[in-house]
Amino acid sequence: MRHHDVVVIGAGSGNMVIGDSFAGLDVAVVEERRFGGTCLNFGCIPSKMLAYAAEVADTVRGATRYDVDAELLGLRWTELRDRVFKRIDADEARGRAGREASDFVTVYPGHARFLGPRRLQIELGAESVSVEADQIVIAAGGRPLVPPPVAASGLPYETSDTIMRIDTPPRRLAILGGGYIAAEFAHVFAAAGSEIVIIEQADQLLGPQDESVAQAYTDLARHRFELHLGRELTKLDGEPGALLLHLDDGTTLTADALLVAVGRTPNSDKLELAEAGISTHDDGRIVVDKYQRTTVDGVYALGDVCSAYPLKHVANREAEVVAHNLRHPDDLRATDHEVVPAAVFTDPQVASVGSTEQDLRDAGRSYVAASTRFADVAYGWAMEDTTSFCKLLADRSTGRLLGAHIIGPQAATLIQPLVVAMALDIDTKTLAERPYWIHPALTEVVKETLRQLPA
Amino acid sequence: MRHHDVVVIGAGSGNMVIGDSFAGLDVAVVEERRFGGTCLNFGCIPSKMLAYAAEVADTVRGATRYDVDAELLGLRWTELRDRVFKRIDADEARGRAGREASDFVTVYPGHARFLGPRRLQIELGAESVSVEADQIVIAAGGRPLVPPPVAASGLPYETSDTIMRIDTPPRRLAILGGGYIAAEFAHVFAAAGSEIVIIEQADQLLGPQDESVAQAYTDLARHRFELHLGRELTKLDGEPGALLLHLDDGTTLTADALLVAVGRTPNSDKLELAEAGISTHDDGRIVVDKYQRTTVDGVYALGDVCSAYPLKHVANREAEVVAHNLRHPDDLRATDHEVVPAAVFTDPQVASVGSTEQDLRDAGRSYVAASTRFADVAYGWAMEDTTSFCKLLADRSTGRLLGAHIIGPQAATLIQPLVVAMALDIDTKTLAERPYWIHPALTEVVKETLRQLPA
Repeated sequence: MRHHDVVVIGAGSGNMVIGDSFAGLDVAVVEERRFGGTCLNFGCIPSKMLAYAAEVADTVRGATRYDVDAELLGLRWTELRDRVFKRIDADEARGRAGREASDFVTVYPGHARFLGPRRLQIELGAESVSVEADQIVIAAGGRPLVPPPVAASGLPYETSDTIMRIDTPPRRLAILGGGYIAAEFAHVFAAAGSEIVIIEQADQLLGPQDESVAQAYTDLARHRFELHLGRELTKLDGEPGALLLHLDDGTTLTADALLVAVGRTPNSDKLELAEAGISTHDDGRIVVDKYQRTTVDGVYALGDVCSAYPLKHVANREAEVVAHNLRHPDDLRATDHEVVPAAVFTDPQVASVGSTEQDLRDAGRSYVAASTRFADVAYGWAMEDTTSFCKLLADRSTGRLLGAHIIGPQAATLIQPLVVAMALDIDTKTLAERPYWIHPALTEVVKETLRQLPA
Repeated sequence: MRHHDVVVIGAGSGNMVIGDSFAGLDVAVVEERRFGGTCLNFGCIPSKMLAYAAEVADTVRGATRYDVDAELLGLRWTELRDRVFKRIDADEARGRAGREASDFVTVYPGHARFLGPRRLQIELGAESVSVEADQIVIAAGGRPLVPPPVAASGLPYETSDTIMRIDTPPRRLAILGGGYIAAEFAHVFAAAGSEIVIIEQADQLLGPQDESVAQAYTDLARHRFELHLGRELTKLDGEPGALLLHLDDGTTLTADALLVAVGRTPNSDKLELAEAGISTHDDGRIVVDKYQRTTVDGVYALGDVCSAYPLKHVANREAEVVAHNLRHPDDLRATDHEVVPAAVFTDPQVASVGSTEQDLRDAGRSYVAASTRFADVAYGWAMEDTTSFCKLLADRSTGRLLGAHIIGPQAATLIQPLVVAMALDIDTKTLAERPYWIHPALTEVVKETLRQLPA
């Protein structure tokens, strides 16, 4: 049986673990799909390239508000898709080739499952190999959930894994789910000319966001898309290209394509973890301690297969921690999941960090909330903005920032000083008053909100 | 002679001094032009409204890069101008009316000059009144400098005070000067359809910026505008609408309008400060201490008339400090001019804080520089950016951040975490590693640059 010092399962964030300091070791990486993982191939990066093009198209469409006469002739989907994936695929190939050329890394292009605590069987086409390793890193990621009515229908459907590579934007795209993936692709395909229908169980879109943000986004979406909120899909039939979606209120919707975006599930169920004695949570995430160690000695996990935060910036941190801990078992580093921001790159952008108002209310916390509309600062004037805002939540007694929520242009950039403040425990008065905030930059919306909070 | 408790000269930032805590006093404000000062009427705010429309027009023009087919039909200058100034003028009128309706504030719509330490003569049309006050605040601002060849010509010219309100964009606009005002209006009027000619004494545009940024902006400008660098205007002649600009190398340029943007000068020379014994620096700025006190008891100054930083966010701070100090002479607050950021809202945006590389080299400091191109982070990919970057300068031994310079989209927003770090003395390693930086937000360009600096 082939022995390796370290085996990494998954060449997404897992691949980042294998730095130069591993060069003296015998390392293997197992990847059954694409190098670069979800982020590069099916997630953050291509979706933002598409979103940016959609934003440009939206700017053209809305130019007249700024006294600019412009005509949108169309978004060339095929060229856009090919531009995006030419770049993505080249990066993927470069990542793979770099590992294959490495003299200390073996690449197994197949699926791994556990035979024992640190023993794996890897299927490589018709063959399979067994390997053992002193240390194993599980970074097998996650995949889109597909609800039973869709799976049972036998009809074609799209997920975030497939929809970015389609040949033609659907004329009418039904999206099942109302979370961040739904919001991002609704934006992209609306800009590409698709009619968008969203079916969501909850009464709001972007439900996990702060209630004010979810409400604001839902209100905007109502004007742009056909929304079916508080509704479930009970049955999918019809035929490819002419789907019929039956909802629990008896409504039947037509669509020529269906994007399933109801959530993601960790790939832990494909690894035969029980053979190794590796525990998982009820939701399928592998149990790890703060050092990213699983319940089995020498086996670590990172990223979407274990993390409560399925976000690339979190997986990157976890990969750095694991890279250190593999090499320094007596000097373990911990991951910090205290202050984790996230953004939704839809229109408008949404960014958040910390608690939502509903979290605080449900927890019985004594808090104070403050909001500033973009329209109330000079740059928001320039943008003729009417719907964007920054909302902050702070502890009523200490003034400590508990949450920050921004919906509007540049939200993902605007939130960073607030992330810094929360991570470094800078109080709101200091943040508002000590640093200058450039006038008339859009950052003034953050400053003005900070200044409304009690010192 | 009419006596007031407090007289404020200038209803721009000066007007902000007069808060509710002054309601028990007899306060006067003297304003010979418009309420809201340079920022509201002739500066930051209208120029950003114009710049934003220009940015929209540029986005339309460049849409094809993102596989979006669009046609720019034109920028409707008159509508844009009227939209901007309808809003500005209403705000100005509201500011004036609010003061005029106040029961503790007298508004003198005229020009003030000193008769003695705390005595003023105010010209109100044909009449004039003399007033004395226990305390005086000088917030008389500044004005555009007009160089002798232009002043001597007797020909019409524009400044930042006038150009935003013109009826039609010039066919060919000559801009004298290559600083931030030149860069902002070159952008605006190029988008409005003007051919732009820039004449600048120095060999680069945006000379006070970090040398890498100035170079990058100059390189971009060279492709868009007709640049005459290292050149001086020796004579202006021709006739209105058909100006002839004679340069020191013998070149003669034609233009139908001339924007003078060679700098600004404080309005201190119009106040007869010598009558009061108020000192000024050689450059005309009123001498103030860190409490914003002039050399005469009871007389304060703030904003462009005294500040080394003619920036609205600095004037705002100074106004807050003066408001406090007027009321609490035994508990004075100091202004903090340590870490002052600034932005240029041209295309691309430029933002900076702290030292430039040339500053550090000239001072013989031991520093380290790091740069990251927007193209090297995921959001920069999405933007297909090729020219933007973030440059950081840090102390070689301590790792303390000494300067930050960003040229590219969202620069004025991106710089804020760096301003926070410098103002609160957060070291670069902590800033890079403790807070999360959202992937794939544009903020990653800042994080990546921080990570390049030695810890």
